[in-house]
Amino acid sequence: MRIIKAALLGLGTVGAGVYEVIRHHQEQLQELVGAEVQVVAVLIQDENKEREVANDVLVTNDIKEILAIPGLEVIFESIVGAEPANRHVDEAIERGCHIITANKEMFAKHGDVLLEKARENDVQIGFEATVAAGVPVIRTIQQQLQLNKIERVQALLNGTSNFILTEMRQKQLPFAEVLKTAQSLGFAEADPTNDVEGIDAFYKIMILSQLIYGEQPEWATVDLKGIASVPEDEIYHSEGRYKHMAELKKVGNHVQASVQPVVIDDQHPLYSVEGVDNAVVLETSLAGTIMIQGPGAGSKPTASAMLEDFIHIFQTNKAAVLN
Amino acid sequence: MRIIKAALLGLGTVGAGVYEVIRHHQEQLQELVGAEVQVVAVLIQDENKEREVANDVLVTNDIKEILAIPGLEVIFESIVGAEPANRHVDEAIERGCHIITANKEMFAKHGDVLLEKARENDVQIGFEATVAAGVPVIRTIQQQLQLNKIERVQALLNGTSNFILTEMRQKQLPFAEVLKTAQSLGFAEADPTNDVEGIDAFYKIMILSQLIYGEQPEWATVDLKGIASVPEDEIYHSEGRYKHMAELKKVGNHVQASVQPVVIDDQHPLYSVEGVDNAVVLETSLAGTIMIQGPGAGSKPTASAMLEDFIHIFQTNKAAVLN
Repeated sequence: MRIIKAALLGLGTVGAGVYEVIRHHQEQLQELVGAEVQVVAVLIQDENKEREVANDVLVTNDIKEILAIPGLEVIFESIVGAEPANRHVDEAIERGCHIITANKEMFAKHGDVLLEKARENDVQIGFEATVAAGVPVIRTIQQQLQLNKIERVQALLNGTSNFILTEMRQKQLPFAEVLKTAQSLGFAEADPTNDVEGIDAFYKIMILSQLIYGEQPEWATVDLKGIASVPEDEIYHSEGRYKHMAELKKVGNHVQASVQPVVIDDQHPLYSVEGVDNAVVLETSLAGTIMIQGPGAGSKPTASAMLEDFIHIFQTNKAAVLN
Repeated sequence: MRIIKAALLGLGTVGAGVYEVIRHHQEQLQELVGAEVQVVAVLIQDENKEREVANDVLVTNDIKEILAIPGLEVIFESIVGAEPANRHVDEAIERGCHIITANKEMFAKHGDVLLEKARENDVQIGFEATVAAGVPVIRTIQQQLQLNKIERVQALLNGTSNFILTEMRQKQLPFAEVLKTAQSLGFAEADPTNDVEGIDAFYKIMILSQLIYGEQPEWATVDLKGIASVPEDEIYHSEGRYKHMAELKKVGNHVQASVQPVVIDDQHPLYSVEGVDNAVVLETSLAGTIMIQGPGAGSKPTASAMLEDFIHIFQTNKAAVLN
């Protein structure tokens, strides 16, 4: 049987999830893509940390070693931050590897250039995992809403901030206390800035903007407000519910985007999206208003998105080879 | 430019919607599939009724005339009922036509045989429109949840019965009165049996069963209860909300399905799906619990599903031709 050689860049929560899912789904993957999937290398930062990977997997902090592996076909990238992820992905594309990424900051900043480069090099980039983890948003827009115009997007793209707003309202607790709970439950990072200030959601809505409208608004023009900006009393006593909403629409020739806490009433589809769930509401020209909801983070849901991308890429490629 | 010749079987709400959407999206369709889409024929029942179609379209009640058209490539089928739709589709497949259908009764009964026949004849069948109209359920399962096992489906698949239950509860009105409102608003047929008795939802959950598990339960074993079976007082005063829920899961080697009114509490994702909306909750092995919600009926949403299927089929085929 043909073997597909894969490398993981990053072995945090997401990378480890990808490794485990591949290991436990060998048979299904073989059926779906007609090949055995072999993780041959892992890029890590700290060579001294212990890793739960098989002995024949190259574990290194040197990207050159990985990209030199003969016959390497696909990269699963789950590093945090734009660099060095972008440089690594760029090189891997030149080297002829398909890319599957979960890195929203990197892809919001460099996705357009990387996609163009991927086209030139005849490889594909899967980025379903950059937005709402395993909730199928990206490929639904790419593949299932091609004739539909998407007139507006309203979305909850950060589970941490949605969890905090939900708990604050339901239990009438202060922001600081709920944040601690979120951290102890693993729903928030030690430094929660990216989540509660809306930066994480901002990257995701920029990725959706690029996908839907082929462009992003000037980043400086995007209204970006964190959830701590709302007086706690308003969260407790508002008639509607505060949601940290990312919004995107085209007004004339300009794409407008915002990420901010807004009050919505019980007629709004996002009203009932509570806790750590993400949801994306797409107002479409023909199919009407469609909402897709589910877990927007976590090891398995994110790995799910990446492996589903992998399957799609190699099924498309197999078809090309066979024809 | 290459021309794709299409025929419509049925010119009711859905067929007329398909005709209009094709007419108004020529440019986009050309961009997406690289060909001009020409509706060359329409199958109708009553030749004496006036039709708003262009003069050069063959309007006939004789399927043979349509299937004899040289170079006919695709059929949009939106007839009501299993026959004669099934016979027509079967013949069209033999003739080498791709099929795009919105006919749930026909597809629930004959989908497996038709799909097999389509494979043998190297054509494709799009059936996104048979379940929840333009809400992308079918292809999400087919293409985006291939590695995921779907462990359970819970769904509201009939807008009429959901509308009636919602109105009865909110306005404390009797079934008969709300049914009349639904009929006057165009949400219910003159004969509402299929909707309120759960037969329409039953066909749809059978289509999902075939898609997800490759089989259907014995139809006689499926619990099927209509919404009129619930005492009105219970709908008014229940602590949760009554929803006409279609459910599907595999227990051991057997697929179990039901369509019945059940009470759900506000923790259930379907709790907030009100009015004529449809929604499908998929419990998956990796991505978690995903819900897809939106308008499950109507001329434009159903036409949307059919045209998106069309685009997918001809993009896949174009790739095959080019390679």
